[in-house]
Amino acid sequence: MEVLLAYDHPRWEEKELARGLREAGARVSMLNVARQPLSGSPGCVLVRPVSMYRAYYTSLYYSSTGSTTVNRPEVIRAAGDKVETLLLLSGRGIPVPRSMIALTGEAALAAGEAIGYPLVDKPPIGSWGRLVSLVRDPGAHRDIVEHRDMIPSPQLQVHIVQEVVEPVGVDVRCLYVFGEVPACMVRRAPRGEWRSNVARGAGVEPFSGGEAAELAARAGDAVGGGVVSVDILPGSGGMVVNEVNGVPEFRGLARASGLDIPGIIASAIVSWCRR
Amino acid sequence: MEVLLAYDHPRWEEKELARGLREAGARVSMLNVARQPLSGSPGCVLVRPVSMYRAYYTSLYYSSTGSTTVNRPEVIRAAGDKVETLLLLSGRGIPVPRSMIALTGEAALAAGEAIGYPLVDKPPIGSWGRLVSLVRDPGAHRDIVEHRDMIPSPQLQVHIVQEVVEPVGVDVRCLYVFGEVPACMVRRAPRGEWRSNVARGAGVEPFSGGEAAELAARAGDAVGGGVVSVDILPGSGGMVVNEVNGVPEFRGLARASGLDIPGIIASAIVSWCRR
Amino acid sequence: MEVLLAYDHPRWEEKELARGLREAGARVSMLNVARQPLSGSPGCVLVRPVSMYRAYYTSLYYSSTGSTTVNRPEVIRAAGDKVETLLLLSGRGIPVPRSMIALTGEAALAAGEAIGYPLVDKPPIGSWGRLVSLVRDPGAHRDIVEHRDMIPSPQLQVHIVQEVVEPVGVDVRCLYVFGEVPACMVRRAPRGEWRSNVARGAGVEPFSGGEAAELAARAGDAVGGGVVSVDILPGSGGMVVNEVNGVPEFRGLARASGLDIPGIIASAIVSWCRR
Amino acid sequence: MEVLLAYDHPRWEEKELARGLREAGARVSMLNVARQPLSGSPGCVLVRPVSMYRAYYTSLYYSSTGSTTVNRPEVIRAAGDKVETLLLLSGRGIPVPRSMIALTGEAALAAGEAIGYPLVDKPPIGSWGRLVSLVRDPGAHRDIVEHRDMIPSPQLQVHIVQEVVEPVGVDVRCLYVFGEVPACMVRRAPRGEWRSNVARGAGVEPFSGGEAAELAARAGDAVGGGVVSVDILPGSGGMVVNEVNGVPEFRGLARASGLDIPGIIASAIVSWCRR
Repeated sequence: MEVLLAYDHPRWEEKELARGLREAGARVSMLNVARQPLSGSPGCVLVRPVSMYRAYYTSLYYSSTGSTTVNRPEVIRAAGDKVETLLLLSGRGIPVPRSMIALTGEAALAAGEAIGYPLVDKPPIGSWGRLVSLVRDPGAHRDIVEHRDMIPSPQLQVHIVQEVVEPVGVDVRCLYVFGEVPACMVRRAPRGEWRSNVARGAGVEPFSGGEAAELAARAGDAVGGGVVSVDILPGSGGMVVNEVNGVPEFRGLARASGLDIPGIIASAIVSWCRR
Repeated sequence: MEVLLAYDHPRWEEKELARGLREAGARVSMLNVARQPLSGSPGCVLVRPVSMYRAYYTSLYYSSTGSTTVNRPEVIRAAGDKVETLLLLSGRGIPVPRSMIALTGEAALAAGEAIGYPLVDKPPIGSWGRLVSLVRDPGAHRDIVEHRDMIPSPQLQVHIVQEVVEPVGVDVRCLYVFGEVPACMVRRAPRGEWRSNVARGAGVEPFSGGEAAELAARAGDAVGGGVVSVDILPGSGGMVVNEVNGVPEFRGLARASGLDIPGIIASAIVSWCRR
Repeated sequence: MEVLLAYDHPRWEEKELARGLREAGARVSMLNVARQPLSGSPGCVLVRPVSMYRAYYTSLYYSSTGSTTVNRPEVIRAAGDKVETLLLLSGRGIPVPRSMIALTGEAALAAGEAIGYPLVDKPPIGSWGRLVSLVRDPGAHRDIVEHRDMIPSPQLQVHIVQEVVEPVGVDVRCLYVFGEVPACMVRRAPRGEWRSNVARGAGVEPFSGGEAAELAARAGDAVGGGVVSVDILPGSGGMVVNEVNGVPEFRGLARASGLDIPGIIASAIVSWCRR
Repeated sequence: MEVLLAYDHPRWEEKELARGLREAGARVSMLNVARQPLSGSPGCVLVRPVSMYRAYYTSLYYSSTGSTTVNRPEVIRAAGDKVETLLLLSGRGIPVPRSMIALTGEAALAAGEAIGYPLVDKPPIGSWGRLVSLVRDPGAHRDIVEHRDMIPSPQLQVHIVQEVVEPVGVDVRCLYVFGEVPACMVRRAPRGEWRSNVARGAGVEPFSGGEAAELAARAGDAVGGGVVSVDILPGSGGMVVNEVNGVPEFRGLARASGLDIPGIIASAIVSWCRR
């Protein structure tokens, strides 16, 4: 069986997935989608570009031309677009932070009045917490809005305005693999940072799932399955699903859980592509 | 019956659609989505923001919260994202310009070598031909790519590299309304411009559909129906579908056809929402 | 005598200056520098584009080709670049807010630790307080820095990190005309805004100069003379000069002072160009 | 004697300059201006950031606080801003390409009609030929202008519209050191590229100056002296000065000339700072 691993920046994850796929019996070829136009129809494609749109279009292209893709384009989009994630999850009754969708800076300031301060303002797209802002008052919100207005990306002009889920700086990340949740972990923001992204220096600890794993399973199903990670905030009022990642990093989770996460993912993908 | 008309910039189209909806028996309320966060669930929503992402999120929000939307979010996205349009159409066997999808500038230059010059390079999103470039040689392509790299919008880093369909400067635009094609027209680019957008000063003439109308019907079905316009290039090798617009302007078509286009659209929407 | 009034957006100020120049005996021709390349050498040029770089290059071009310009390019640059203003003023012993110059976001965060929070972070260029941010803590500073990093303008990557001069929301603006200070006013920020720009809704009151007028005269001399406005913060520790504007707006000052400000400026320019 | 070498990205040039300064008897300390705010007054500063604005503000800061800087801020700005370079050179009677200054895209298209096609369109700032476009016709010019309009940097909205100096793809680069011109070289653009920047793969050959060296000396004087490189186009109608670089790279020149260029520069700086 042949698997094409499409990437742009080869991280630890991509190298380990290639190893895992080979160990699971697949022949692996690599495609750097940053260097060549998309072409061919390779049968089974593991979609791993870091950039969300590169991942989305890679998956859309190959699934439109007859290949099986992991993740499917619908999943990458539903996870990569935080507005869509929110609406899908809340439509399924999965708890999420109280949120408003504002299509301009002016609407975001109006949403701020309705939600109340402090609040979180974030754009629909972006990884590692980038541009996710903890806004303490209307003046600081205006400063953020003015800056955002200067970035000429239409999608970054959209604001998700959200309640702050206390306590900040801690979340639970679970991995979802075709309906199963093999591992979760707790992430704690480093000192002086409220965002608990591993890329920002968060510490990780093992965590045995329970309610979080169940929520992660429902969230993974809601965005369409495949292989995703789910970020859950353990709020004082109960757990809420914060975000879903359609091209998940999992180095921290491998470390925290002691499991061969890339091997688990790779085996599942080989089975999926063999169906 | 109540219809919410969601807009950002009220053009002639929005005013005429409001009139048409009222004449068709609806009570119309207006919502400027640029000023307030999205809220409520108004039953039937006519989605008319000029900005594609505003239109998409408006439709996604209201359809997720139980309203009937025209267009549905899938349609606005499938038409608004030219990569998705291309893949959907060619997947259905509808003729489109020969195209390659390149996820970086470097890949676009490689696509240029494969397609050959002159060629058209355009990003996946954008209206009125904005950033659609007619590129004569690899050097000019490199200049365009360098400029594009400086615009910090992830989606604008994606290039559709496309054959030039001769003759340039003329196309057929048809309106599609829930499976019907009530009118088409020919658009001719003004002197010194190769893009035939009415916003760029193109002249319009009536055109009785035939093959174009049939192609438009298939293209409208392919992107998911509703109310869209379809741009068709009358190439020397046969007609090809160039783009589909999910929040169509139709002032030029009303003038060219002599028909009450907003009335036709409004009646169809009222029937659709009543179902 | 002939005066060329170079503009891009004709505001009240430009119309009144044209009137004043005519009343002072000049023949006035108008040039919209947004529409045509710069050309000619008209003798005396009043430089009034709203955009700082348009004003600067207009003045640089005409002064390089032999015309007398008001303001001279050095003045427009020294006032328009807030780093240069700061360094010029403090080099002359004129009191300014305690400030650090940081050439990247990372350096700005280090400057924040040195200055202490709350602080003001602003880029070297910009009018009407745009992007001038009141930052309450290091986390909010990181949010601003991340946003700024996404704006692809090299000059906006530079941060002026500054103490907050209490009380916020009030300043004194004086007009400087070739060494004289004909009028000052007090500006008070509207409710819910700390920036006292008239364009942001600040209220204005007459103010008889005294110490402020003297500071304004020194600041105007320091940036090279001509016609500028000077913003002074009446801090609890004494007055400090905050900014200088090289293409000043003065509608608020005309209202507050009851003087014919455009007439005063126009007469001075005619005398200057006649020398 | 102490010299502060201020840098952001340490290239071969910075390392060799540090070596040369030490060999010339200076104690060298290094400052990464990308990491810390500017501070202190170190006496003698060699200004070497790659980014023009970082270099400019570094020089402006240190020269305002009493240090001797190489280059002085006026030189870095006069060389870094290609509009200012052009006006300074032509004001001194030094031949330059026929050029127009256009402050908007619309003005650039009007300049294109006046200059005629093909032409060169470039912004006032930028290194290694970035955004310098060879434009074949008005349609291609419109494509470039539309792209430029999307980059939210005010200075990039300014266009220098210039005749093409034939033959393209070849220029002479000379180094200017405090009034002397120790070496020149010829650069030839690689195949498929018309820009002769070494960073773009240009080949270099030794060149003994003559007329070019004399032009370089006049151009270096015109921008204010110090250490700069001068790019000269050997046009069929005679040599013209194209650009001046205020923080010059010289690795190619060291290779082509066989001289110890960093040593030559370092000795001159030590002498200069000792004065």
